Amino acid sequence: MILGVIGLGLMGGSFALSCKNNYNFSKIVGIDHNKSHKEKALKLGIVDEIIEFNEIIQCDVIVLSIPICAIICVLEDLSKLPLKENVTIIDFGSTKKEIIDKCPSNIRPKFVPSHPMAGTEYSGPEAAIPNLFENKVMVICDIKDTNKYQLNIAMEIYESLNTNIRLMNSDEHDRHAAFISHMPHIVSYSLANAVLKQEDNEHIVALAAGGFRSMARLAKSNPAMWKDIFESNEENLLDAIDAFKKELKIAKKLIKKKKYNELYSWMNKGNTLHQIL
Amino acid sequence: MILGVIGLGLMGGSFALSCKNNYNFSKIVGIDHNKSHKEKALKLGIVDEIIEFNEIIQCDVIVLSIPICAIICVLEDLSKLPLKENVTIIDFGSTKKEIIDKCPSNIRPKFVPSHPMAGTEYSGPEAAIPNLFENKVMVICDIKDTNKYQLNIAMEIYESLNTNIRLMNSDEHDRHAAFISHMPHIVSYSLANAVLKQEDNEHIVALAAGGFRSMARLAKSNPAMWKDIFESNEENLLDAIDAFKKELKIAKKLIKKKKYNELYSWMNKGNTLHQIL
Repeated sequence: MILGVIGLGLMGGSFALSCKNNYNFSKIVGIDHNKSHKEKALKLGIVDEIIEFNEIIQCDVIVLSIPICAIICVLEDLSKLPLKENVTIIDFGSTKKEIIDKCPSNIRPKFVPSHPMAGTEYSGPEAAIPNLFENKVMVICDIKDTNKYQLNIAMEIYESLNTNIRLMNSDEHDRHAAFISHMPHIVSYSLANAVLKQEDNEHIVALAAGGFRSMARLAKSNPAMWKDIFESNEENLLDAIDAFKKELKIAKKLIKKKKYNELYSWMNKGNTLHQIL
Repeated sequence: MILGVIGLGLMGGSFALSCKNNYNFSKIVGIDHNKSHKEKALKLGIVDEIIEFNEIIQCDVIVLSIPICAIICVLEDLSKLPLKENVTIIDFGSTKKEIIDKCPSNIRPKFVPSHPMAGTEYSGPEAAIPNLFENKVMVICDIKDTNKYQLNIAMEIYESLNTNIRLMNSDEHDRHAAFISHMPHIVSYSLANAVLKQEDNEHIVALAAGGFRSMARLAKSNPAMWKDIFESNEENLLDAIDAFKKELKIAKKLIKKKKYNELYSWMNKGNTLHQIL
């Protein structure tokens, strides 16, 4: 079987490397619109070959690891190509509902909408690592509209990478992702901007220890990619921001009114998250 | 020279272990009100001996690594003891102005108000590690009121632990600490509570990857200790929360109005934090 990876950045590159180590593809080919990504992916041994878009028809498994808008366009393009009869098409978009809704119906049964809950704040082929998905959750959405054959192929690959597969409907996924990933990115960018806007920001940052660094880490993420994700999950994201703001407001009010015992209880409640995390 | 550590938790315990490896104390003694902390500190080799409070008079260097309220009380108690003529008293409180303001004047010249910008989300003697302070910033505040002798002793110890010493006035320190440490803790607790209040919180948390974990890590911190810190830095903390809220509001408004290009620029600005971090 031949694997084709469209988008050779952190996620696509890591997927190719992981498959090389764990799944028996006869060849891994790659597509990227960025010339330096193509060169690096070849040099780093992420793919065996760089191909043109219409050569993707040779592939048995096609993975779209590109921004959400691009996934939607490429699914449209793929639907017009003479793909292999049993091709399995996978996407790694961070929101699922819009992508699934816009997937052309002729390829929908061959499409396995997926979201690996993994990543780092780095990007590009040089950020790719072979164990990115190990022991991480891999969500597959709306499987009722995917053929059993393609679903099995995807699950076989995901299992070979030691991921923990979770099946979910896309509404549920997008809501959960807003809370666990999208809103926290907005929070991290807010924190970064709040500090940057202080006159003495360099002196403030000079005191940064591990705690601040871990809170500000997500603000290193690629703004172009995240803008896209936020746009495609707007409503859930706004809900999650509101839920967060509500808690911040509670804390602020308790501090302002010097109700420190109540603030203590509120923090204690937050503490319990780590019993389920 | 004999070192006395009051408070054998993460910070005090780590300081004792670091001094054992790097500074030539003839003996390290410890005080804690918690019986299990005392036993663990002895068993883990953090201190050579557990002593009663009035036996602290044997020490040449006394470190207060306890909550802020307790530091204020213990300084008061120390001021009434027949301490050694050249004793050096150090505290590790996370806010400095209130502690310094309340330090009895007879011991103020022997007092070196310090704040190591280091820590983990864990607590207790078992959390102590010998390299906690290595390459971390150690702030010393308001040195004009400390004798040269005591200042030099403290700096000699801090240098032996490979910390980066920064001198600062306490107003400035407390303001910076609010932005870099105290407000981010409130943000992390808010995030934890926002997720916990969702009906399907366990399903949400099941999707957590590294990003969420790093944002929620500070909410593991000890609420009793942090309540104290927040209380003693109220005004700066409220300012920092407001600065953060302002940014969150900008983001929310841009999302709501679908101004994604402006959101992109806002994120891009946040990105630049990492050039100075």
